[in-house]
Amino acid sequence: MNPDMDKILLFGDSITQYSSDQDLTFALAPALQHLYQRKMDILVRGYSGYNTDQAVQFFHHILEHEKGIKLVVIFFGSNDSATNEQHVPLDRYKANLEKLAQQAVDRGIKVILTGPAPHDELARREMFKDEPGVNPRSSQLQKRYSEAACEVALKMGLPSTNLWHAFATDAGWEPGMPFPSTVEGEGNEHETSVTKYLKDGLHFAGPGYKVWYDELVKVIGERYPGLSAENLPMVMPLWREFYGTS
Amino acid sequence: MNPDMDKILLFGDSITQYSSDQDLTFALAPALQHLYQRKMDILVRGYSGYNTDQAVQFFHHILEHEKGIKLVVIFFGSNDSATNEQHVPLDRYKANLEKLAQQAVDRGIKVILTGPAPHDELARREMFKDEPGVNPRSSQLQKRYSEAACEVALKMGLPSTNLWHAFATDAGWEPGMPFPSTVEGEGNEHETSVTKYLKDGLHFAGPGYKVWYDELVKVIGERYPGLSAENLPMVMPLWREFYGTS
Repeated sequence: MNPDMDKILLFGDSITQYSSDQDLTFALAPALQHLYQRKMDILVRGYSGYNTDQAVQFFHHILEHEKGIKLVVIFFGSNDSATNEQHVPLDRYKANLEKLAQQAVDRGIKVILTGPAPHDELARREMFKDEPGVNPRSSQLQKRYSEAACEVALKMGLPSTNLWHAFATDAGWEPGMPFPSTVEGEGNEHETSVTKYLKDGLHFAGPGYKVWYDELVKVIGERYPGLSAENLPMVMPLWREFYGTS
Repeated sequence: MNPDMDKILLFGDSITQYSSDQDLTFALAPALQHLYQRKMDILVRGYSGYNTDQAVQFFHHILEHEKGIKLVVIFFGSNDSATNEQHVPLDRYKANLEKLAQQAVDRGIKVILTGPAPHDELARREMFKDEPGVNPRSSQLQKRYSEAACEVALKMGLPSTNLWHAFATDAGWEPGMPFPSTVEGEGNEHETSVTKYLKDGLHFAGPGYKVWYDELVKVIGERYPGLSAENLPMVMPLWREFYGTS
């Protein structure tokens, strides 16, 4: 009769930090918490604006402080791939992700790596129409960083979720078509839009978190079936069985 | 630069266990988690069907296992007040609540006590219309247990939330009127209904969790202002300040 709960850690930037916001109609963290009720805790560690240069400096501390972390979802790249002062060059992004993943692996913690989703240039242009300037983000850069995260995972034998591909595919995009929601693609007959997945062109709306949730649950089932909610027993006996009778 | 997070523990029965379900349109745990983002973790420890006789047997284990618990919301009574095998007599319910609260107080953890909300007899009658039998719950009993939880809190100098009163008042009920959503009150011109707060006459719907959320945030602000989200600093520096520059 042990009430201890193991944990799934969500580690990332603002998209992780805001992942409990029900006003979006669907939020990732509570969806996982509901799925894993009486089975695992979902621990949210998201830091708005952070890149992997910052993450590598304190991730180990979280792993040492919290008991029972069995799985960590590492999701960075939306800031690393920006061309402003948040930028981390692609090679260093990959090296940082590898460091983060290795710190978890060394502690026996399972890992899922995730790079950035698409960017909605058209939504950002609308948002910042009164503040003209260079948008530091693009779907093209985010796609490269997303693929880089998958390459790091492949090299380390770890699973990954490619949210760029998942969002774009769900929106009807296919390779060879203009990138979704880009200035270049605007008005093109094969144009696709990822607007509904993003609330401001960058942060996730409900449908974006839902795609991420579906991808996560799928990859856990495929690669870590022992951590799949359906395969985990409930913590503590059912009330009728509590006293050893049924 | 310390990423450790303190915790608010939600300890209770099924109403706590199901408190992350966004399908209800509003769920308590993510609402708190969003309010306390980068400030506190919300830890859900709810056990469907449990009463305080069961809770007292393992609560100390949770308090010892989890680091950084600063506040615990203890919410039992919906099962204790039932007249079936889940029943715990009123005096023992009060003694159990006092034991639970004292275990937290002894560890320097702040406590908010909560007893049951109203019961919707009319909804339960409809639900079980093909399985006639004695409904083991009533609003009258749940009101007594709710008041008992408040009495224990008052005796110990702790804050409480009276959800029975909060739901009923929000529904327009006033003392002297028939109890809301009761067979006795049915058709009475002063009848009030708590149907919208409960999804099956017992477990909370979105509006029920919203009333609980509002009551909790209010009592934290009044009695534990140091734990109010607005008074807590964000954990970890803002990204622009991370390297000591602003």
